[in-house]
Amino acid sequence: MSHHPIEPVPAHEPPYYAAVFTSIWTDDDGEGNGYGETAERMEELVQDIPGYLGMDQAHTPGGLSITVGYFRDADALKEWRDNVEHRAAQQRGRAEWYERYTLHVAKVERSQGFKRERD
Amino acid sequence: MSHHPIEPVPAHEPPYYAAVFTSIWTDDDGEGNGYGETAERMEELVQDIPGYLGMDQAHTPGGLSITVGYFRDADALKEWRDNVEHRAAQQRGRAEWYERYTLHVAKVERSQGFKRERD
Repeated sequence: MSHHPIEPVPAHEPPYYAAVFTSIWTDDDGEGNGYGETAERMEELVQDIPGYLGMDQAHTPGGLSITVGYFRDADALKEWRDNVEHRAAQQRGRAEWYERYTLHVAKVERSQGFKRERD
Repeated sequence: MSHHPIEPVPAHEPPYYAAVFTSIWTDDDGEGNGYGETAERMEELVQDIPGYLGMDQAHTPGGLSITVGYFRDADALKEWRDNVEHRAAQQRGRAEWYERYTLHVAKVERSQGFKRERD
């Protein structure tokens, strides 16, 4: 369902914003209910937001799903929040796809990365 | 590996902190390398930190793992960061368990939750 390469979004220079979205799906495999297509479309669409820095996603089968979107500043985040197609997807999410969710919008104050050295 | 019930940590009253830890493991199933035991121990230990609000975790098999820890304030976060056993686990993580990781420490400015209504 995801086209992201398997590597986490790197640490950027603070400050920047992280939007942490944690959810439980009504239909865990998400097949046939349009979720997958919409998620792909949103991943495409968010790339066009100036100040979009990247996205991390993980989903435990049968369990929790976490998506973290990173944005340079509050304006970028607001532009994504106000996007018409994104708003329609959020509404459909509440109507169909999500059993529950939490959104935490946070300003990153500190970040660090690690990459294993290989011979 | 996890003892958390399948529900996301609820929205708390801002401000609070979210520590977003995204990682790729060297050994994806994590069996037999001590990762699982250490992760369980850390989940136990963090409960004792005053101001600890909860933790969300998701892991895509063969892919990304995301852990988000929530803390009431910077002091709570610092106490967890400085915990001796936690520091030893972090060191072992860099030596053995993680291919790469990123940590984003962020102050939550806004949060919201959704729960599906059932008849």
